[in-house]
Amino acid sequence: MRIPTLLIFVIALFTFSCNTPPHASDTSAQQQTSVSSKDPLPSWNEGPSKKAIVDFVAKTTKAGSIDFIPIPERIACFDNDGTLWSEQPMYFQLAFVMDRVKALAPQHPEWKDTQPFKAVLEGDLKTALSGGEKSMMDLMMATHAGTTTEEFNKIVKDWLSSARHPRSNRPFTEMVYQPMLELLNYLRANGYKTYIVSGGGIDFMRPWTEAVYGIPPEQVIGSSLKLKYTMTDTGPVIQKLPEPNFVNDKGGKPVGIEQHIGRRPIFTGGNSDGDYEMLQWTTTASGYPRFGLIVHHTDEVREWAYDRTSSIGKLDRGLNDAEKYNWLIVDMKMDWKKVYAFEK
Amino acid sequence: MRIPTLLIFVIALFTFSCNTPPHASDTSAQQQTSVSSKDPLPSWNEGPSKKAIVDFVAKTTKAGSIDFIPIPERIACFDNDGTLWSEQPMYFQLAFVMDRVKALAPQHPEWKDTQPFKAVLEGDLKTALSGGEKSMMDLMMATHAGTTTEEFNKIVKDWLSSARHPRSNRPFTEMVYQPMLELLNYLRANGYKTYIVSGGGIDFMRPWTEAVYGIPPEQVIGSSLKLKYTMTDTGPVIQKLPEPNFVNDKGGKPVGIEQHIGRRPIFTGGNSDGDYEMLQWTTTASGYPRFGLIVHHTDEVREWAYDRTSSIGKLDRGLNDAEKYNWLIVDMKMDWKKVYAFEK
Repeated sequence: MRIPTLLIFVIALFTFSCNTPPHASDTSAQQQTSVSSKDPLPSWNEGPSKKAIVDFVAKTTKAGSIDFIPIPERIACFDNDGTLWSEQPMYFQLAFVMDRVKALAPQHPEWKDTQPFKAVLEGDLKTALSGGEKSMMDLMMATHAGTTTEEFNKIVKDWLSSARHPRSNRPFTEMVYQPMLELLNYLRANGYKTYIVSGGGIDFMRPWTEAVYGIPPEQVIGSSLKLKYTMTDTGPVIQKLPEPNFVNDKGGKPVGIEQHIGRRPIFTGGNSDGDYEMLQWTTTASGYPRFGLIVHHTDEVREWAYDRTSSIGKLDRGLNDAEKYNWLIVDMKMDWKKVYAFEK
Repeated sequence: MRIPTLLIFVIALFTFSCNTPPHASDTSAQQQTSVSSKDPLPSWNEGPSKKAIVDFVAKTTKAGSIDFIPIPERIACFDNDGTLWSEQPMYFQLAFVMDRVKALAPQHPEWKDTQPFKAVLEGDLKTALSGGEKSMMDLMMATHAGTTTEEFNKIVKDWLSSARHPRSNRPFTEMVYQPMLELLNYLRANGYKTYIVSGGGIDFMRPWTEAVYGIPPEQVIGSSLKLKYTMTDTGPVIQKLPEPNFVNDKGGKPVGIEQHIGRRPIFTGGNSDGDYEMLQWTTTASGYPRFGLIVHHTDEVREWAYDRTSSIGKLDRGLNDAEKYNWLIVDMKMDWKKVYAFEK
């Protein structure tokens, strides 16, 4: 079976640099998303990007407008990694996988002599991932399967409460983009239903997306393992099996949208070529107006700068075809007044 | 690959009797669902069933009640066939399959000599389904795959606009249960999000559930074929492949709920043993109060009467264990003042 998405994990040299000192404030990003009645997007600089978004929302929600879209059709889909929160120096889910291997190691003495586990335990990520797809699959299965859905939910929550991003030394859930939180709120305030459509694991996202993004678990679409309903002595459980179910990346994103939503989105945001087909599926639809947005990582100071040749979040086809499909390229450095809520 | 659900189709002798003359009224069931401010369930007779439902909704939605459930957690899941609309004298989707075979026959001259198509074309349903799972699979693949999702949507809508139920001679979408429409509205008016969780095809339901039940496509969970995103000369399409993706029946129902919703339901309604695990998964959950409801087909005059030995909608384990799990058995004959909206 081909699991092309897993390749996106097999990517990088993860230099864990701690350039930024920990900040004193412990305010979560979520607390700072209240939208001013005057300006719904205060962390966006004035300019063509902000204007394009505001104009689109205005024309599609104004009664009597020829571009008016009925509320049930107002579906907005966003990629997660690199679009709603950072994805550097590695996908945050990969940090979780590494920590899980270490946590589970005492129950697996054989891992000391078995790759890719041996390399992970020795902190040698490059070697750990050198086995390509097979290595990543072994790591995913060993850390994501073999629990019930409810157990896994708790494991993710526990990890997020203690793990810290290597550069900011903050919880990973504070590495969300303040301008995108504002955009999500703004769309919802205008009758749009917001979804996450991510190549990441659906079970890794659902435990926290409601608190962090205001997006409930039923509006999270992601990659998944097969599940099995089983009766135990203490009641029924749903077990996570070590078998891939769905890969929600590239052409899988429109398929995941169709399976979960059954409508073509009106508004879609992404950042990498993994989002290309989702953007294409959105903005080639007939009928209502559509909006495609790409977050371009141009800010090497406040965030990271990468695009066409990056091993994480590669954006090449998207830049080539943005004009053809009328996708808005959001320039993070130019368009965002602030990247994270915790910035001074 | 085992496709146990398809067996539910391989069932019956379908005597198409037309006992009931066509009625003059063309009012759709949907138009008659407005809920009185006094009685939210006017088509339910007073009695323990109605009281149990109203008491549950009251206690779970009253602020300050120890049983209060926050709105985001108020998830209500309903089976479709036999729970929200009739399923006799055959699953309505099977009537669609039969008509589709006839419509497609001119493009398939070989079907005149190939079972099970030959038997379908000759109106011999018993022979058509005598090949068991394999026959049904052949029929499903031939009629549900090979189109795009958007084409299939239109095919279903066109069929529903012309097809008539063999007994009532009304559109199949008028064979919905008025008391259940009221229950759906009542739950929604009290902050519950209503879902369909059916063994039927997800693509067969979504084109009409919003108009008929007020349930949008993103809240419909069902069985499905695999899908493929493809670029064509005229733009991207999603193709329905002749390959099973998911069987949303029995233990598959809790799995489908987990995949789509990611929360355990609060309120679940079903009618057959295909709903057993969904009911069990709901009412064994800890934390909030839960409600399980089974529609018992006891009305041989207004609808049909069947349960433990029926080939369609068999209800045996559910009756045995209803008391153990505290499931409410709704007696259609006793509890419902009216079954269909079109009744005088």
